[in-house]
Amino acid sequence: MPTDVIFRSATEKDVPAIVALLADDVIGAGREGESDRYLAAFRDIDADPRNHLVVADLAGEVAGTLQLTYIPGLSRMGAERAQIEAVRVASAHRSRGLGREMITWAVDQAKQRGCGLVQLTSDKRRSDAIRFYESLGFELTHEGLKLQL
Amino acid sequence: MPTDVIFRSATEKDVPAIVALLADDVIGAGREGESDRYLAAFRDIDADPRNHLVVADLAGEVAGTLQLTYIPGLSRMGAERAQIEAVRVASAHRSRGLGREMITWAVDQAKQRGCGLVQLTSDKRRSDAIRFYESLGFELTHEGLKLQL
Repeated sequence: MPTDVIFRSATEKDVPAIVALLADDVIGAGREGESDRYLAAFRDIDADPRNHLVVADLAGEVAGTLQLTYIPGLSRMGAERAQIEAVRVASAHRSRGLGREMITWAVDQAKQRGCGLVQLTSDKRRSDAIRFYESLGFELTHEGLKLQL
Repeated sequence: MPTDVIFRSATEKDVPAIVALLADDVIGAGREGESDRYLAAFRDIDADPRNHLVVADLAGEVAGTLQLTYIPGLSRMGAERAQIEAVRVASAHRSRGLGREMITWAVDQAKQRGCGLVQLTSDKRRSDAIRFYESLGFELTHEGLKLQL
């Protein structure tokens, strides 16, 4: 278990490292490339108080990333829900408990904020990831449906 | 197919009708009740430019509701994604094509905004709803994982 990891908000300087993590993935690789859109998207996230792009910083290196989105809603007695997207751990740091530390941290953030629910979707091909989330208490109650535009 | 439906932003006056729709559901019923949190949650949604609570208005009656959330992100070349939550059609108006009209309208909103993806989750017990979303082009590529806090 990495003990010296720091969870901090991403800055503009982290964007290339985060995009590299998104691309260093069997499923995500074909979806990324060179684009000015990344910086614009970072600024959209950074300006939004309900979106939090996070890096797991290990001695100054971006070892992992995830994004938290806090979604207000009427259902479940008006409870806010926290959504986790874009979870990635750098290949050099996998299988050492960093992912577990990241998701546990994210769930704690949601608890501290008073959210009623944490949700995420995971590609059905990521069977290891799905087992990992189940081991953290997530339940496979829903289908995750996507429509590409 | 209802031809006189109007899609409009929900107002505070619609909150009781929307909560009634959320509760009038085999899965949602046990999750709702009397609470001041609903109005506070409505105000949170209403104040957020990335959240849009919508009602399908049929001659002044709230016949359906859904919520759109626009989530900025770095993945997929920095594309914004649109998420649909809390979809309900009033029991008196089911099986007449209103749900199809609502989701088609929501997808069009996402297209007009330039989103790269529309996503939603549906409880696995809602097999009719899942087939309905598939008929609209949504793909069952992901598991939807939830952690109650």
